Amino acid sequence: MIVVQKYGGSSVATTEKIAAVAKRVAERAKEACVVVVVSAMGDTTDELISMARQLSSMPEDREMDKLLATGEQASSALLAMAMHDLGIRAVSLTGGQAGIITERTAGRARILKIDVKRLREELNKQNVVVVAGFQGITENASWADITTLGRGGSDTTAVALAAALKADSCEIFTDVDGVYTADPRIEADARKLDTISYEEMLEMAGQGARVMHSRAVELGELYDVDILVANSTKDVPGTVIKKEDDEMEVRNPVRGIAHDTDVTRITVAGVPDQPGIASRLFATLAHSNINVDVIVQNVGTEGLADVSFTVQDADLEKAKKAIGPVTSEIEAREVVVDQNVAKVSIVGSGIRSNPGYAEKMFTAFAAAEINILSITTSEIRITCLIARNQVKNAVRALHRAFELEKA
Amino acid sequence: MIVVQKYGGSSVATTEKIAAVAKRVAERAKEACVVVVVSAMGDTTDELISMARQLSSMPEDREMDKLLATGEQASSALLAMAMHDLGIRAVSLTGGQAGIITERTAGRARILKIDVKRLREELNKQNVVVVAGFQGITENASWADITTLGRGGSDTTAVALAAALKADSCEIFTDVDGVYTADPRIEADARKLDTISYEEMLEMAGQGARVMHSRAVELGELYDVDILVANSTKDVPGTVIKKEDDEMEVRNPVRGIAHDTDVTRITVAGVPDQPGIASRLFATLAHSNINVDVIVQNVGTEGLADVSFTVQDADLEKAKKAIGPVTSEIEAREVVVDQNVAKVSIVGSGIRSNPGYAEKMFTAFAAAEINILSITTSEIRITCLIARNQVKNAVRALHRAFELEKA
Repeated sequence: MIVVQKYGGSSVATTEKIAAVAKRVAERAKEACVVVVVSAMGDTTDELISMARQLSSMPEDREMDKLLATGEQASSALLAMAMHDLGIRAVSLTGGQAGIITERTAGRARILKIDVKRLREELNKQNVVVVAGFQGITENASWADITTLGRGGSDTTAVALAAALKADSCEIFTDVDGVYTADPRIEADARKLDTISYEEMLEMAGQGARVMHSRAVELGELYDVDILVANSTKDVPGTVIKKEDDEMEVRNPVRGIAHDTDVTRITVAGVPDQPGIASRLFATLAHSNINVDVIVQNVGTEGLADVSFTVQDADLEKAKKAIGPVTSEIEAREVVVDQNVAKVSIVGSGIRSNPGYAEKMFTAFAAAEINILSITTSEIRITCLIARNQVKNAVRALHRAFELEKA
Repeated sequence: MIVVQKYGGSSVATTEKIAAVAKRVAERAKEACVVVVVSAMGDTTDELISMARQLSSMPEDREMDKLLATGEQASSALLAMAMHDLGIRAVSLTGGQAGIITERTAGRARILKIDVKRLREELNKQNVVVVAGFQGITENASWADITTLGRGGSDTTAVALAAALKADSCEIFTDVDGVYTADPRIEADARKLDTISYEEMLEMAGQGARVMHSRAVELGELYDVDILVANSTKDVPGTVIKKEDDEMEVRNPVRGIAHDTDVTRITVAGVPDQPGIASRLFATLAHSNINVDVIVQNVGTEGLADVSFTVQDADLEKAKKAIGPVTSEIEAREVVVDQNVAKVSIVGSGIRSNPGYAEKMFTAFAAAEINILSITTSEIRITCLIARNQVKNAVRALHRAFELEKA
C-alpha cells in the first residue's frame, strides 16, 4: 500500500513540530509505504520573499524560484533526520530528484510529467521518502533550472505524486480539521463535512475557504485521486474530496457558505455604451494576469455606462496601472475604488438542478437587512457582493436559512 | 579576461551587504567576465546545523549536506537579484548546475571534475555567473545527490572554478585585509604580506591563522592558481598566495608567527615502554578521524612512559572516547587533560635551509620567561606548546626577535 501525506508550513514551523510530524509518519509507515511532501517551515517563504524585495523592486522569477525552493529543501532534509532519529529509514528528495518535471514558466510552473523511477526505487529500499513540496525542475537534466508551482504548490506536489504512483491514499495535513459548511470562527454551528466533490471544493476555495490549493483539487479531479484533508495535530476524521457520488444526491443541495473579504471593487464610470469597450478593459486585465470577478455593467444617462468588477486586494495597484491607458483613451469620467466590500456565496452541486436558491438567499439577506451590491453565479454557486462589515451577519444568516447545521 | 571572485559569509550577512557586494562585482564586470562564488549569509550555516542537532543527535551526512546547501543556493539567488537591480545581466547556479562533480562522501566531498560547459555558455551570454559555493553533486545526473565540500568549502569552489576556467585572476574577499606576519589584534606592529607561498600559507593556516581554507590553498598549488586574499569592504591591496619565487629568497626567512589556542593536551601516563603501544594509541585516534599534533613520549621510572599529544579542543570528547579501550587494556595509570595550553609557531620557507632558528626561538622565549612544554617541527615551521595565558607575550616576543615589523 502506498500513502502520500502532505504537511503544510504551520505543521513543520519549528523543530518540535517536525519531530511530532516524524512520529505521525512513523506510525503510518508501520503499515504502508509512505511518501511525505513538506512545505517550508512556518514563515520561511515570506521571509525569503521579503529579503528578495529588499534587493530588487521586481525580482526576476528564475532567481525567486531558486531562492524559495530552498525552504522546502531544508524542511525535507530536517524531517528525514527526525525520521532517522526514530530509527526509521528515510531519504529526502528535492522536487527535481523526485522526478517532477515542469514547464519553464517561473513562479507558477505547471507539472509536465513525473518520472517515478527514483521514488519507486527508494520505496522498494523500504525508505520513507520525504519530498520537498512546491518545486520541480525543467526538462533538460544537464541544463535544468529549479521551478516552483506557485503559492500552495505543495498540495499540488502531493496530489500529482499520488496520481503518478497510483497511491492508495492522499492525505493533506493542515491546521484545520477539514472543510466546514462555513468558517467556524464566524458560525459556531458550522459542521465539518465528511465528503465534498471536487467541483464544490473548487468553488469553496475560489471564494475564500482557503483550505487547499485549487490546482491540487483540479489535478485530483483529473486523475480521480481521493484527497483527505485533516488536522496534523489531532486524531479526528477530516474531509474527503472526491468524485460526486449518488449518496451526495440526497444531501442538502447547498453544501456550504464561502466568504472572501480580500476583494476590492473597481468602478469605471462614464464609459461610452458601445460594443467592445468593456471587452478591451477586461482583455487588458487578463493580459496583466489579474483575475476579475463579479462584473456588472449599468447603463446610465447620455449613453454612458458604469462598469464595475472586483479584483483581489493584492492585485489593486496592478489593476489600476493596467486599466489606466484604456480609461484615459475612452475618456471615462472616473475610476472609483471601494475596498469596503466582500463576497459571500452559497456552494453546492445541488444548486444546478434546483431553482429557487437565489431567491432564498436574497430573502435571507433582506431579513437580515443586508444590501446586495451585485450578484454573480456559476453552475453550482451564487455569489453576492455586500459591504465588508456585514460579512459575519451574512454568513450566519445563510447558514441558518439553508439549515446547514443539520447533518 | 575571466575573473573568479569569492565573497564569504560575513560579506553577504545582510541584504545591505549583498547590495554592496553587487556594486563591487558590477565594477569588476565592466572590464572582465566575472564568476562570483558566495557563501551562505552570516550565521545561516550554524543556524541550520543547530536545527539539525535539535532533531537528531547524529544527523545523517547526506541529509545534512542537502540542508546546508540551501544556504548558498539562497545567497547566490539573492546576489543575482541585486545584480539585476543594478542593470547587470546575471544568473545564479547551484554547485551542480555549475558542473561541480564530487565524490559521494557526504560532509567533506572532494571535487572530482568540473564540467564548465554551462558556465562558459552563461559567460558567453554576457552574464555575471553567481555560483553557490561549498557544494557540488555526485556524478550520475539522474540520480545525483547534493554534496558539500566541508567547512570553508566556498574557497575551494572559487579556486577550483578558477583552475577549470583557466581564469586570469582568483580573488577571495573576506573580512580581513590579507595575511599578516602575526595576528594584528595581538601584535600592533604586525605587517600585511604582499605575497606568501602556498606552503607557507598552509603552515600559517594549519597553525591557526584561519584566513583561508587549507584545501583551497592545496588546490591552488596543484593547479598553479595565484590567489588574492583581500578585504571585501575596502579598496586596499591584499595578499597574493602564489608559487615560491626567487624574490622570496632574499626576504626574511621567517614569514610569520602563527598561534592556535583551540588545543588540548592529553597525557596518557604510565604506559608500558614497549614497541607498538604508542602506535596503537595513535592508530585508534586516526581511525576516529582525529588530527593529532605535538606528540611527546617521556620514559619515566619502572619501564613506564608518559605519552602526550595535542588535539583540537572540539575533538576532546571524541578523543577521550576513542582511546578509552586502549588505555584500560594497557593499564595506563591515568589520562590527564590539560586545556591550559596553546601552540605558537614560526613559519617560513627560509627555515629549511637555515639552521639556528629553533635556538633563536627558544632564546626569545627564555628572555620573555615563557616555559616550553614541548616542540614539534616541519620543514618550514617550528611549533612550541606553551601555557595558554602566555600566547600574547610569546607572539610579541617572536615578532620582535625575528624583526618581522621590517619590510
